[in-house]
Amino acid sequence: MKSAEIIAVGSELLTPQRVDTNSLYVTEQLNLLGVEVVRKQVIGDDRDRLTEAIRVAVDRSHIVVLIGGLGPTEDDVTRDAVAAALGRTLRLSLEQESVLIARFRQINRPMAKNNLRQAYLVEGAEALPNPHGTAPGQYMSTNRGALAMLPGPPREMKPMMKEQLLPRLRHVVPPSVIRVRNFRVTGIGESDLDTLIAPVYTKYTNPATTVLSAPGDLFVQLRATGSTEKEADALLREVGNPIAELLGEKVYSENADEPLEAVIGRLLRKQIATVSAAESCTGGLIAGRLTEQAGSSDFFLAGYVTYSDDQKTKVLNVPADVIAKHSAVSEAVATAMAEGARKLSGSTYAVSTTGYAGPTGGTDYDPVGTVYIGLAAPAKTEVVRARYGGDRYRTRALATQAALDLLRRRLFKA
Amino acid sequence: MKSAEIIAVGSELLTPQRVDTNSLYVTEQLNLLGVEVVRKQVIGDDRDRLTEAIRVAVDRSHIVVLIGGLGPTEDDVTRDAVAAALGRTLRLSLEQESVLIARFRQINRPMAKNNLRQAYLVEGAEALPNPHGTAPGQYMSTNRGALAMLPGPPREMKPMMKEQLLPRLRHVVPPSVIRVRNFRVTGIGESDLDTLIAPVYTKYTNPATTVLSAPGDLFVQLRATGSTEKEADALLREVGNPIAELLGEKVYSENADEPLEAVIGRLLRKQIATVSAAESCTGGLIAGRLTEQAGSSDFFLAGYVTYSDDQKTKVLNVPADVIAKHSAVSEAVATAMAEGARKLSGSTYAVSTTGYAGPTGGTDYDPVGTVYIGLAAPAKTEVVRARYGGDRYRTRALATQAALDLLRRRLFKA
Repeated sequence: MKSAEIIAVGSELLTPQRVDTNSLYVTEQLNLLGVEVVRKQVIGDDRDRLTEAIRVAVDRSHIVVLIGGLGPTEDDVTRDAVAAALGRTLRLSLEQESVLIARFRQINRPMAKNNLRQAYLVEGAEALPNPHGTAPGQYMSTNRGALAMLPGPPREMKPMMKEQLLPRLRHVVPPSVIRVRNFRVTGIGESDLDTLIAPVYTKYTNPATTVLSAPGDLFVQLRATGSTEKEADALLREVGNPIAELLGEKVYSENADEPLEAVIGRLLRKQIATVSAAESCTGGLIAGRLTEQAGSSDFFLAGYVTYSDDQKTKVLNVPADVIAKHSAVSEAVATAMAEGARKLSGSTYAVSTTGYAGPTGGTDYDPVGTVYIGLAAPAKTEVVRARYGGDRYRTRALATQAALDLLRRRLFKA
Repeated sequence: MKSAEIIAVGSELLTPQRVDTNSLYVTEQLNLLGVEVVRKQVIGDDRDRLTEAIRVAVDRSHIVVLIGGLGPTEDDVTRDAVAAALGRTLRLSLEQESVLIARFRQINRPMAKNNLRQAYLVEGAEALPNPHGTAPGQYMSTNRGALAMLPGPPREMKPMMKEQLLPRLRHVVPPSVIRVRNFRVTGIGESDLDTLIAPVYTKYTNPATTVLSAPGDLFVQLRATGSTEKEADALLREVGNPIAELLGEKVYSENADEPLEAVIGRLLRKQIATVSAAESCTGGLIAGRLTEQAGSSDFFLAGYVTYSDDQKTKVLNVPADVIAKHSAVSEAVATAMAEGARKLSGSTYAVSTTGYAGPTGGTDYDPVGTVYIGLAAPAKTEVVRARYGGDRYRTRALATQAALDLLRRRLFKA
């Protein structure tokens, strides 16, 4: 497979405020050609550092894409650095000079003298027209493949990438396609997941496998390259099917853009069912997640954040003597909360949480991090007891995810 | 000035979907030490490429910070690559092994065998404790200065950067004092804020001024450099005092780590007062924010996510004829919701929201993005009507922030 690297040029991209996002679009377009981006760099407006970076990059990668630093000012050093790195000269292109003059006439602005810098091409380079700005891009062959310079403003860079650079790169890249398969997974930790599936995926470098993790939420992506779509898809099946089998119902979606609450919304709509939430330690996070999707009023009826004992009794009808006997953090109270919410809202299902999010609270039997998670359904109410480590933020996030997952699994079965 | 480079490790950061944002925080912290970041790189989970990049970086820059690739899995290659680049060995640290075992015991999960990889330190490296995750960081001296490895998850990386790495780097960086002054601001847009305060801060390069923005939440930071603390503080007063005066009560805190809900918690505790929330379009986000702080049960009594008309009437006693006459999204209903929540919970204050978060819904008079925000207090109930642009996510976040700010301003006055 051909490899590419991207060098974004600009001192502003080395401040705490700005991040290079141009490379995302360039990566997407290169991937469509079957080219893998193996390295990205950000270099300031520093001629020497940039020259060195380009020299190394053209020796090591087939395709080098530089973004930015093509403007008219002193600190626009990309042209100079490319010429220096390749040991070539910069030459004024009379054709580009006319293009520039015409462009300034078109936008009805006087052309300051320094703009002429933009009409210089590196020896052997072809100009890439820029209908949205003044700086043309440049394209040239290198020993290993090709080098391109694109302007920094996204409105100029994107059309140039797609309409000018891609067609030229097709001639240096053998035809191939990249296809991906995603698994969104919950109910298992990252290292346990890896222990489970690494024996499958480590046997292959194609597809390449990535595992990402957020609290209670894992993401496995397989990326296969083939000379045809069919070939890439066959590789995805070969590795993906055993992984799907190992993970079973821990996979809640194969759609990368579908979070757990969206899966729940989809299943509830399909079953014409509704849900409500009775929350103590998660303090509204479950309701917040369930109402994140547009149109969630189709399936979400109500949330009750009953933070005090008094509210649990008054709003959800949790008997005061049950709280007195078992304490507010208990299986009995989680049961009564879920059933109370289901009754008060008239929903098909209701989830509940009660626990010690910390950092203080807890008992010997139920230390900080203990959460009882309830699910009231038409047939029965179930409660699971979980113990999370880590801080308050993590406990609340994990308990929210676990409550949603308890509901999701029930809906899968229904 | 000392120079630094940052290498973010992870194949997912070379896809079109993900961008490295960790380096922004690391840059900010390095800048506070007076260290300039001159180059950033992203390398995939590729041992050889990473080894080469590290070898070059330690030869050329004083400080090299690696982020990510410290997890337990096969594709976590940072430790190996650093050892290979510096020609050092990796050694099992018995101390780190015990830390890991204790950590897994604390979070009550069995420790998969591959986790032991995280207990290996590069020869000559010191472990940087990670209270928020399993992978310790590492720190070591190099010929030109220092190299550090930080974990990828921001919640683990940020505290380690600030509390562990910065104090160590102070020994390799010549002393100059950097002092900061922060303003957390709400109730004004970013460009209006800049129009207001730019005439003050643009006159100075020291202190340097940064404006960061999140929906409804702005952050202004002044960073002054001086040879003494006194000199830097004088500069902060010279520029910061006029800015504070211009912004007035739009500044809700000068503590960078104090979000709006923490200010509210502080004020409520001080006044021995309590709050509840009645939410429609914000769907639990207000309750979620108010319960984020440890010990929030001191001041937060209850949240009611009354998503349907029926629930507004049944739970909060909003009269059905008021909804029929004014519609659920109206000043009258916002008033009744806040008063209903205040009464049902017995809280001193209650906030409410009802609106069209979108993307569908709305009327000619109250189009998508319209939200009525109520505040019931002992003396009176007030309602403000807001109209937000942008998507569902943004409208919900802005309405949540506005409701909290309405309460904060009232508490300021009390």
